[in-house]
Amino acid sequence: MKNDLLIRAARGEPVERTPVWMMRQAGRYLPEYRAIRADTDFLTLCKTPELAVEVSLQPYRIIGVDAVIMFSDILIPVEAMGQEVRLTEQKGPELPDPIRTRDQVDRLIVPDPIEKTGFVMDIIRTLRQELNGAVPLIGFAGAPWTLAAYMIEGGGSRNYANVKRMMFTEPTTFHALLDKISDAIILYLNAQIEAGAQVIQLFDSWAGELSREDYEQFALPYEQKIFASINHSAAPAILFINGCGNFLEKMATSGADVLSIDWRIDLRDARARVGPQLTLQGNLDPCVLLSTPEIITEKARELIRAGGGHRHILNLGHGILPMTPVENARAFIEAAKTVLE
Amino acid sequence: MKNDLLIRAARGEPVERTPVWMMRQAGRYLPEYRAIRADTDFLTLCKTPELAVEVSLQPYRIIGVDAVIMFSDILIPVEAMGQEVRLTEQKGPELPDPIRTRDQVDRLIVPDPIEKTGFVMDIIRTLRQELNGAVPLIGFAGAPWTLAAYMIEGGGSRNYANVKRMMFTEPTTFHALLDKISDAIILYLNAQIEAGAQVIQLFDSWAGELSREDYEQFALPYEQKIFASINHSAAPAILFINGCGNFLEKMATSGADVLSIDWRIDLRDARARVGPQLTLQGNLDPCVLLSTPEIITEKARELIRAGGGHRHILNLGHGILPMTPVENARAFIEAAKTVLE
Repeated sequence: MKNDLLIRAARGEPVERTPVWMMRQAGRYLPEYRAIRADTDFLTLCKTPELAVEVSLQPYRIIGVDAVIMFSDILIPVEAMGQEVRLTEQKGPELPDPIRTRDQVDRLIVPDPIEKTGFVMDIIRTLRQELNGAVPLIGFAGAPWTLAAYMIEGGGSRNYANVKRMMFTEPTTFHALLDKISDAIILYLNAQIEAGAQVIQLFDSWAGELSREDYEQFALPYEQKIFASINHSAAPAILFINGCGNFLEKMATSGADVLSIDWRIDLRDARARVGPQLTLQGNLDPCVLLSTPEIITEKARELIRAGGGHRHILNLGHGILPMTPVENARAFIEAAKTVLE
Repeated sequence: MKNDLLIRAARGEPVERTPVWMMRQAGRYLPEYRAIRADTDFLTLCKTPELAVEVSLQPYRIIGVDAVIMFSDILIPVEAMGQEVRLTEQKGPELPDPIRTRDQVDRLIVPDPIEKTGFVMDIIRTLRQELNGAVPLIGFAGAPWTLAAYMIEGGGSRNYANVKRMMFTEPTTFHALLDKISDAIILYLNAQIEAGAQVIQLFDSWAGELSREDYEQFALPYEQKIFASINHSAAPAILFINGCGNFLEKMATSGADVLSIDWRIDLRDARARVGPQLTLQGNLDPCVLLSTPEIITEKARELIRAGGGHRHILNLGHGILPMTPVENARAFIEAAKTVLE
């Protein structure tokens, strides 16, 4: 591999400089992405390897990120499990028949990832060919708590009232759902690694809505089960949780090689709390990228210094916002590539 | 006062049992509240003392809370500063002319709270007469960062992109706005205390969206300025921040007598982090109140035990949700009133 900085940082090996990429880097802030989306709805884009490959590569070609993440959506395996999913980027996902009963949970299947989501594996294989070792390829999946939240709420949520109601009042049904999702995600991620994903990221994006006790009961065990069942030597594993500051020490026991943290935690504090054996990814406030290239450069450099140049992958604390100017995104990436005194 | 448990708990004095109330306890989960709202829009309700007094008293009469909070909205003083505010409970607030320039900041006034928001003082005076010393009366205001977020975003927000853009790129303008809001809120809270508020709560509800560094720069100094300028011996002061876990130690330096914390932090951890000299308020996940009275009783009791019966005010970690059954709210209140073994 020509640029394997991200993989070395994930494994705790020495790196010449801090690697950098951005969550949602293949997205609406890029005019080239919007041009493709003008003719193609979101779900078609996810399921058309030629187009998904193209948008995955855009941030590498246009702003020079140190890793490519496959273009897809965390709800793709949910659809494969048998629940209808409507993906519209503007309005967010809609699941018109939300899961509310044990019977609905029992009817969900644990799909064969090749048979049901073969297009994802095609995207990965083609991306590996196209990249030809230039930078690592990241595959990903949603984690059980976060996927269950979408499946029960029927879409995004402000309060997570329905999923938490089931969690508190029907824990047996809820655990059955989390178990089934875990089984599906293990197969899905291992299929991605076999197809060529060189790093995988598990998004438990909304687990930060849980109390520590509920995180330990309903999210962490399933993260652990998944990380225990995938091949880390083939692909180091990253865990992202938005709002993880209240249980970072617990998150450190998930089995992930890399913890991707949101901007609300101070990076040096996070290092002190998780110890030296894990890599940290993050964690600039995505809103900083709405300021100016000068401010972005300064704040990114502060973060690189805080990361200490070892076991740190520079990233945002959450996905890049659609209204981000491209030159600002570029300034963020460039900050990591400039040698610091 | 017949029941001054909340005031004693706020001051660190001994109490026979943990006092309890709920953020947004005068609200849509009560049929009696909805009956009044059926004929009255939200802003009219805020500005009609007779009706505002009635809905403020409902949770005391119906479920027996240990404190009454005046019915109002944190954006009332924003309107008094000269920015148009449209309050619709369903859609949330709308401010059709959001603040984006220094010129707009300069045009805002620091209003005389008696002249511009005399109805709030009327509500407080009438509530004190009606309560006749039964339980303490809580007044409140929004904190500068949170109010500025509404004023700049023009309403609620998902990413706080506009307010943060100004914060990062125009810090001088932003500080001028925060300063002006602080001056208005100091006058407003002192007028509430003079009118008879016996406790005040400052809502910096969205400060948890900030990194610790940004909290220290853009939120904490204004909280400190406000708490340094109000009469604590007449009314102990509570500070609420949703998502305060990443800077709780800093929040403890705000000058508040009571820190109201969200459910994501473990209460015992919070106590260890802030030390013995402050009272903690909270912090049950409001979604627990969507479960069953039995589960609520058990979890509330756990929390009372974690609070140790000293310097703890039982509350939710955020406002009660509109779909909460009344009997579940009552179970939460009753849990505090039952003597524990």
